[in-house]
Amino acid sequence: MKKAVVLLSGGLDSATALYWAKKRGYSPVALSVRYGQRHWRELKAAKAVAEAAKVPLHAVDVPLPWLDHASSLTDKSLKIPDLPLSRIGRGGVPTTYVPGRNTLFLALAASLADSIGADAVVIGANVLDYSGYPDCRGGFLSAFEKAARRGTRRAKLKVLAPLLKLDKRGIIRLAEKVGAPLSLTWSCYAGKSRPCGRCDSCKLRAKGFAEAGRPDPAC
Amino acid sequence: MKKAVVLLSGGLDSATALYWAKKRGYSPVALSVRYGQRHWRELKAAKAVAEAAKVPLHAVDVPLPWLDHASSLTDKSLKIPDLPLSRIGRGGVPTTYVPGRNTLFLALAASLADSIGADAVVIGANVLDYSGYPDCRGGFLSAFEKAARRGTRRAKLKVLAPLLKLDKRGIIRLAEKVGAPLSLTWSCYAGKSRPCGRCDSCKLRAKGFAEAGRPDPAC
Repeated sequence: MKKAVVLLSGGLDSATALYWAKKRGYSPVALSVRYGQRHWRELKAAKAVAEAAKVPLHAVDVPLPWLDHASSLTDKSLKIPDLPLSRIGRGGVPTTYVPGRNTLFLALAASLADSIGADAVVIGANVLDYSGYPDCRGGFLSAFEKAARRGTRRAKLKVLAPLLKLDKRGIIRLAEKVGAPLSLTWSCYAGKSRPCGRCDSCKLRAKGFAEAGRPDPAC
Repeated sequence: MKKAVVLLSGGLDSATALYWAKKRGYSPVALSVRYGQRHWRELKAAKAVAEAAKVPLHAVDVPLPWLDHASSLTDKSLKIPDLPLSRIGRGGVPTTYVPGRNTLFLALAASLADSIGADAVVIGANVLDYSGYPDCRGGFLSAFEKAARRGTRRAKLKVLAPLLKLDKRGIIRLAEKVGAPLSLTWSCYAGKSRPCGRCDSCKLRAKGFAEAGRPDPAC
């Protein structure tokens, strides 16, 4: 059975990507990364999802001092944007962008894949919801795949982004198809005991469930 | 003045790359990474070199559990190879290869470069001495450059490897030209109080100084 390293933040997208990988016949190893987020509420969700999926989870701690003030996801003194839905993803790179985050995530995943002999790295990136993030675009992911194939012993390593062209509604539909336990996931950027309902991530999630015509099972 | 992130292990190669970057007019920020090496004697050297160069140093700790048994540089139960010089770099990927190491180093450097607005990442990789390492080859470095340009806000980021085509003798000559303080550097894989003289790294270093017709100032 082919192995795949799946980047698992504990959010809706990565949980769907994990179950997609299982459905595609991969034996997944999940990977969660703490890089200095203002909260790590997501890890609880990632653990619950990995347990439900019966896959091993590596949770690694990568404290990077230069990120402390580089993003509103890492700097508690910055306000997390509260934008109308129509403006999310327009107007350039948002303050929630974390410099080089997916490059780092994929490098960690490539290192793990090279260590365990995995054939693929799976990431829940999607370009429609996160069009302002340079590291969620297909061109970046295929360029990284080329680099990882050359820089490791896995010369045929695949970087798979099954959600790339889907919006939140499409992801929710795929999640249902592959049986991802969305009730266990956590998307909110704020990390209080309940989702804030106001950050980009909460709004995109709510819109997705509304458009899919279903209640959010995590609420 | 253009900024450059320079990967600095504390060895001869990276110290030379740092001084080369200074000479080329860059304002360098040095970056050292602990990824679970069996020793971190190198950090002492990296600190001394950065101090001598009067450049700031970020030293980050990235403990990756899957590397614990993936390389003779991280696993103390494995023997560090003691090969005749003629066989170093031949015979495939050596046990000192650390899966995905330069991919990870460059991803960290790209994240830092994106955070501080640097124009270049500098790495002391050289293909002649480390021909067995897939992540020391030019094809990998240029592929990574393409990925980092797409995945960050630094669309013109350069990945510079000034030692790429040099052997140890050539690097020692370049070090002299740019004024790198080789007496402060540490190359040995073993990490005792004195260099072991038997690992690949010690042997390549000794050969380089012999061929350059100079004594090693660190001995």
